[in-house]
Amino acid sequence: MAEETVKLLGYWASPFALRVKWALKLKGIQYQYVEEDLPNKSPMLLQYNPVHKKVPVLVHDDKPLAESLIILEYIDEVWKQNPLLPIDPYERAKARFWAKFAEDKCGPAVMAAFSKKGEEKEKAAKEARENLKTLESGLEGKRFFGGETIGFVDIAAGWIGCWAQMTGEIIGIKLIDAETMPLLDAWFKDFLEVPFIKECMPPQDKLLEHNREFHKILTAAST
Amino acid sequence: MAEETVKLLGYWASPFALRVKWALKLKGIQYQYVEEDLPNKSPMLLQYNPVHKKVPVLVHDDKPLAESLIILEYIDEVWKQNPLLPIDPYERAKARFWAKFAEDKCGPAVMAAFSKKGEEKEKAAKEARENLKTLESGLEGKRFFGGETIGFVDIAAGWIGCWAQMTGEIIGIKLIDAETMPLLDAWFKDFLEVPFIKECMPPQDKLLEHNREFHKILTAAST
Repeated sequence: MAEETVKLLGYWASPFALRVKWALKLKGIQYQYVEEDLPNKSPMLLQYNPVHKKVPVLVHDDKPLAESLIILEYIDEVWKQNPLLPIDPYERAKARFWAKFAEDKCGPAVMAAFSKKGEEKEKAAKEARENLKTLESGLEGKRFFGGETIGFVDIAAGWIGCWAQMTGEIIGIKLIDAETMPLLDAWFKDFLEVPFIKECMPPQDKLLEHNREFHKILTAAST
Repeated sequence: MAEETVKLLGYWASPFALRVKWALKLKGIQYQYVEEDLPNKSPMLLQYNPVHKKVPVLVHDDKPLAESLIILEYIDEVWKQNPLLPIDPYERAKARFWAKFAEDKCGPAVMAAFSKKGEEKEKAAKEARENLKTLESGLEGKRFFGGETIGFVDIAAGWIGCWAQMTGEIIGIKLIDAETMPLLDAWFKDFLEVPFIKECMPPQDKLLEHNREFHKILTAAST
């Protein structure tokens, strides 16, 4: 039997590709990483993700798969070690609920605060803070969303903690702080200190610089 | 052991509650249905879905669960008969991909065409048609997205076929037609003829009247 092949099409600063890197690392899966040049997407990316034309794409034995949260579920179903989702259906559903909440409500609100100016920025930052506060309720005093170890919601929402902090620095409004969101603040700091999580992170100074540039472009476009 | 209790908090014209009704019907699960008065949401709804305060909420043995697609996954995991998702992880991932595409790209575009006016309406209708055409590619010549029988994507996207047709009638622009989307057109007609699907549908004339009124309110508000 031919050896299993796993390939990931990503982009170094993509938080969605980062989710997949974290999940593969947690599972201990060896893979070939293909860095995409997003302004000049490769024919392989366009062929493998014709609908969205976006990273990440996971290619397992020549079968391509897009959408990072769906890729996480796939990884968890194919490689059973170090499970991302709990076994109990109700606990699984709750994990999916918080992952979806982070995806639909926290990520876009942080991005809006990042890309807007003036009053719109203030409004988006307020919404981001409210949604992050709601996300915090999913922690319920646990160390990680997954309990004592990192699980599905941690992998899904981990980038938001990091990006929220960076966005706060760039736009001058704190989106997460220890005073009003002590659990969430402690969570993402703890999360980023977990060795396999840290290992996959892009260099922080390079990422901050990249996002500062991106912020300039976005806010210049919105004048 | 106490008997299992299943309760659904819904609203008769909600397509998201309809998904859950279809799934429970397919699985043959008896449940208590609680109709919500959306302008005066019940304390039970606010207690069970404090984050979104929306229907549907499934309450299984006093454990509440929100978000219709997550409820579908839960139902499929708890009651194994007549499976919604395929067994193979890659096929499961593909089904989740198309359900998410319908949710993120088709539903909102149909709703935008429904709620906008003039040029914005035309633009939204064009986008809805393009996205529905893309959704059609997930059918790949099959009768249903699930193959010969109704599966996860059919239950997730079924309402979109129905609402797209109704929206077309209300706004005067066809969103699905047999000429440019023959597979999708045949699919949703077939789908609506399946007895258990038909049984759960709200009365079509009442729904059309309700949506005509809703359309008037939305477009009046957008002047």
